Amino acid sequence: MQALRWHNTKDIRLDEVETPSVAPGRVKIKIKWCGICGTDLHEYLAGPIFIPVGTPHPLTGDKAPVILGHEFAGEIVEVGDGVSDYRVGDRVTVEPIINDPDSKASRQGLYNLCDKMGFYGLAGMGGGFSEYASVPASMLHRLPDSVSYQQGALAEPASVAVHAVRQSRFKMGNKAAVFGAGPIGLLVIEALKAAGAQEIYAVELSPQRRERAAALGAKVIDPAQVDAVEEIIARTDGGVDVAYEVTGVPKVLEQSIDCVRIQGETMIVSVWEGDAPILPNNVLMKESHITGIIGYRNVFPATLALMEQGYFKVEDFVTKKVALANVIEEGFETLLKEKDQVKILVSPEQ
Amino acid sequence: MQALRWHNTKDIRLDEVETPSVAPGRVKIKIKWCGICGTDLHEYLAGPIFIPVGTPHPLTGDKAPVILGHEFAGEIVEVGDGVSDYRVGDRVTVEPIINDPDSKASRQGLYNLCDKMGFYGLAGMGGGFSEYASVPASMLHRLPDSVSYQQGALAEPASVAVHAVRQSRFKMGNKAAVFGAGPIGLLVIEALKAAGAQEIYAVELSPQRRERAAALGAKVIDPAQVDAVEEIIARTDGGVDVAYEVTGVPKVLEQSIDCVRIQGETMIVSVWEGDAPILPNNVLMKESHITGIIGYRNVFPATLALMEQGYFKVEDFVTKKVALANVIEEGFETLLKEKDQVKILVSPEQ
Repeated sequence: MQALRWHNTKDIRLDEVETPSVAPGRVKIKIKWCGICGTDLHEYLAGPIFIPVGTPHPLTGDKAPVILGHEFAGEIVEVGDGVSDYRVGDRVTVEPIINDPDSKASRQGLYNLCDKMGFYGLAGMGGGFSEYASVPASMLHRLPDSVSYQQGALAEPASVAVHAVRQSRFKMGNKAAVFGAGPIGLLVIEALKAAGAQEIYAVELSPQRRERAAALGAKVIDPAQVDAVEEIIARTDGGVDVAYEVTGVPKVLEQSIDCVRIQGETMIVSVWEGDAPILPNNVLMKESHITGIIGYRNVFPATLALMEQGYFKVEDFVTKKVALANVIEEGFETLLKEKDQVKILVSPEQ
Repeated sequence: MQALRWHNTKDIRLDEVETPSVAPGRVKIKIKWCGICGTDLHEYLAGPIFIPVGTPHPLTGDKAPVILGHEFAGEIVEVGDGVSDYRVGDRVTVEPIINDPDSKASRQGLYNLCDKMGFYGLAGMGGGFSEYASVPASMLHRLPDSVSYQQGALAEPASVAVHAVRQSRFKMGNKAAVFGAGPIGLLVIEALKAAGAQEIYAVELSPQRRERAAALGAKVIDPAQVDAVEEIIARTDGGVDVAYEVTGVPKVLEQSIDCVRIQGETMIVSVWEGDAPILPNNVLMKESHITGIIGYRNVFPATLALMEQGYFKVEDFVTKKVALANVIEEGFETLLKEKDQVKILVSPEQ
């Protein structure tokens, strides 16, 4: 079958690989749609980050070249021995966290914080940019009838946003700021709406992304035109309850610390390339908080239920759909060139 | 009367000033003992930090030169009109926070986070390095019979430590690390003992301070000999629950972030001179927390009760007692020269 594999920095290829066979405890999925994640782009441009190179991943035993794609949904076409909860024909999405169930973190239920944690579609095992995937049944979540395969492919990034809001100090009726209105930033705005935000401020340089944030109901701020911190503090009478940092830009981390109220919180959602300076006095003089999240845990069912309620609509986040055969040029390269793209979905069936 | 006044950086003087008269709502205190705080030293060496210079403080109306000293206890010798809770002869300590009771923070009970917040003994009104002070009755706390005036002078810095532990995520039975075993670091160790710590690691370069930390029951680590982070992670099987940063040194902030367990917390207790780099990924990969405190609120009664129970003993923290007449040379200058000094108390009666 055809699959997109990461070979090296700036070297991803559509390779002909063996179609995976089902194994005990696994199901074979015919992939319908798979989203391109910022992490995939990152691996393409500046990887390896999560991809094992040289030494095999301790849990998957795989190393580069590995198949990419961890935001996917599809139909079960074969069920392995010992899998009793799923049948052929079931429509599923995949929670792609690979963890050691015996690790200290996993035993506390914090499986995304396992020290050997990896992602299906980055650390090996297979990936969503292909025709078929063999996936452990423990990673599956059944799609509700009203949730399409395309929306199912959004369950993974939407779960990052849901986890970020749930792990933050945000409470219904609070005011929030979201710095960066890329795919995850927009999904955080949507999660905040579901969580009962009073006001959501979106700080974003790109006019197209500001437009999308505004369409979701956020009050948009162009940091090239005004001082975002002063603006937020003035309009909220002292700062937001929680600020979500979704850019990975050092200067923006400072802003997301400075725009919260006394006892407020800054939640870091982005993954970083290096260090960032903070002014500790700006934390302690407000007795404010900083925290962060990686991935998600135990939230896919909630995300799918929110989709049933009307949140995380495909049309609000998906800006392009491309065939697997064209994923590099029309998917990865397009995302790098066109700032108005949000989520691009890829299908082997197109 | 004689009083120590801050005139300028490196310019503090024992001046002859007018003895304060009592006013409505205030009491006149004959000062028994006043501690020298790290902040006093900071103002001496690199001030003004909290001291109003040029423009009067918005709440006190005072500006430099101002009398120093905010860690003090004494005897009430006169009671102003409208003060019904206190009498001549009462033994009291002073909670020196000056705030605007109508501010948003004060109305939420967060009076130490008031945007006009100042300290008695830094922002004007008077100070503890003098013979008498006129103090609003709202700042007073009566000393229990078993608490001496010397111990009463420790109530202020001990309350910083009590507030830091109470505001942190620390719970009875947890493991903690304290970076920096100066006066506040040692008081944090003592507060952690009172809070039921299982293990307390003290990281400190000075052998004399390590000795004091060990005497309080901490497990001491010399960061010049071992990698403090590796050591703490190895000895706690993954990191402490809460790390207290009490140095104000950028590199140490990083260490205090890196030595906490998954979902652990770093509590910043020190006041900073500038910025400090952090590695955001080290926060989000553990979903850990960073917070900080300034001063204290609503904890003086608890601190004094802990003193009655045997915590915060004078002999564990006070290393020298000097007369007000010699406060500059034997107090401030000695603290700068001798690393084995912890708390120096000053009395106008010596």
